[in-house]
Amino acid sequence: MSAFVAHGGRLSAACARYGGAPEDWLDLSTGINPVPWPGAQTYVPDWRALPDPAALARLEAVAASHFGADPALCAAVPGSEAGLRALGEVLREFPLAPGPLTYSTYTKAFGSADNGAPGPTVRVLTNPNNPDGTLQTRTEVLAALDRQEADGGWLVVDEAFADPHRDVSVAGEVREGRRLIVTRSFGKFFGLAGLRLGFVLGPLAILDALRRLHGDWPLSSAAIDLGLTAYADTDWIGQARQSLQRRAQALDMLLARHGLAAQGASPLFRLVRTNRAASLFETLARAHILTRPFEGYPQLLRFGLPGHDSALARLEAALTRWSCDG
Amino acid sequence: MSAFVAHGGRLSAACARYGGAPEDWLDLSTGINPVPWPGAQTYVPDWRALPDPAALARLEAVAASHFGADPALCAAVPGSEAGLRALGEVLREFPLAPGPLTYSTYTKAFGSADNGAPGPTVRVLTNPNNPDGTLQTRTEVLAALDRQEADGGWLVVDEAFADPHRDVSVAGEVREGRRLIVTRSFGKFFGLAGLRLGFVLGPLAILDALRRLHGDWPLSSAAIDLGLTAYADTDWIGQARQSLQRRAQALDMLLARHGLAAQGASPLFRLVRTNRAASLFETLARAHILTRPFEGYPQLLRFGLPGHDSALARLEAALTRWSCDG
Repeated sequence: MSAFVAHGGRLSAACARYGGAPEDWLDLSTGINPVPWPGAQTYVPDWRALPDPAALARLEAVAASHFGADPALCAAVPGSEAGLRALGEVLREFPLAPGPLTYSTYTKAFGSADNGAPGPTVRVLTNPNNPDGTLQTRTEVLAALDRQEADGGWLVVDEAFADPHRDVSVAGEVREGRRLIVTRSFGKFFGLAGLRLGFVLGPLAILDALRRLHGDWPLSSAAIDLGLTAYADTDWIGQARQSLQRRAQALDMLLARHGLAAQGASPLFRLVRTNRAASLFETLARAHILTRPFEGYPQLLRFGLPGHDSALARLEAALTRWSCDG
Repeated sequence: MSAFVAHGGRLSAACARYGGAPEDWLDLSTGINPVPWPGAQTYVPDWRALPDPAALARLEAVAASHFGADPALCAAVPGSEAGLRALGEVLREFPLAPGPLTYSTYTKAFGSADNGAPGPTVRVLTNPNNPDGTLQTRTEVLAALDRQEADGGWLVVDEAFADPHRDVSVAGEVREGRRLIVTRSFGKFFGLAGLRLGFVLGPLAILDALRRLHGDWPLSSAAIDLGLTAYADTDWIGQARQSLQRRAQALDMLLARHGLAAQGASPLFRLVRTNRAASLFETLARAHILTRPFEGYPQLLRFGLPGHDSALARLEAALTRWSCDG
């Protein structure tokens, strides 16, 4: 499973190992909404001109409004992963504070402490956390910020999976003089991960350094156009929040019928813990269903949401085979 | 003209100052091919999945083949401007060597020397140079590399506008142990600047640092798909080289009829020098034709290529008005 522990979405590697073409696979290895915002389906981008800086500024304002944040403290980045990489560079004097199992990019983006030497750190708090779906309240997050600020460090709150949840974001708490940075992802909730669009909310000196790093055209024309329309589509956003919860419940019931208890609060992915995770991954992969294992945690497997009833039925059939084998 | 000296393509600012909607303007302020590669016109991207790392590797190989470079030493970046910004970060211990009037990004991306203190530098050599179109031979470029290496510095050759020219690229000279880095742009020659696609060719340690900075998904799905198809379209590439030369000659003849001698070897842009550059910019802008002035060089004006005969006729009419006013 070693090819599949770094990130989800590695369908090419899955085809090379288990056969089939990418379109034959049911990819449950990511936390990407399988029912994307529909406005992108018929959109033919006009790639000819350079992206327009005025449109980029409008996108940052519309997105900040969705986040409940100050538009002056919101910078668009080409994907939240790229935003985290840039933050690692900007905050390179601060080593990463150790934390629980979470997104693998953090250790690649941020430096590590030399022999656990004391001193201020950057702590990344993922809310809800990936992969276990632990959701912290705003009060808990702000208490973590107080602890980081007391040490002269920084708190980065990665809210890549926060869109399905109301009242958890601390994006509105970002302000000048505070050592709080929030990252947001467009592609996960809107189901358009190939677009590469994310946002960093933080004090101006941080955003200035990010913008210097990403340059004068950080986004493609398509990311600006689609982001502008999608974040303003409050009807779809409300409906998606509801339908993600329904789909997550259906997945939980299916998993429970096979003795698997799904964990966490995120409807975009469900984590199961079983001693038979390796055989579960293998059985599903042979049925061309890709799930997400984790290095060093052989009893964990993360499931993305099946998008349609037919996908749920396909997963059910494969789980039944696995249960019978056990 | 201050809003228009940083970069070309600032149509929103032009509309705000001189009226009209972006589609009313003839934008001659950039060096982007006005007749783009046609494969993008009907392409509806599938944005749902994360970009595929295997497809990214194929794109780097196809592009390296177009550049005549070692595919192992070729990294895709989200636009050559973003690549230069990242190089500025990776090579931050080396100040930028002073040079002639050239692309404004260099001074934003690279550090400046403290009071001209001696020591190794990074020199950026733009070939052909923007905006004056000076073209250097491979021998001249490699001599500049020798000088940089003798001092322990680096040479970055920005070949953003090199595609129309055969036998000028030093991309094939990049190798392990040499202090040579080459940057390439997709959007200019292929006329698709909104896509944000470029390449950096350099020793592995440089590419590793760039990849760490840009993260695991440096490109959008569309940039990978279109880049893969366009760089393999050798028929179109050959035809575009010929037609760019024809269009540049037609523009030169038109400018000459109004007493303006176009300078340089690049068919993607033509530079004119006239004491009346300010009135020329203004007259054209009032006719909703945007050209490119340069801060501190009030006698220079750069013209991008008109894409069609009707655009050429529109420019001719405006130039006639300017000549009559003079």
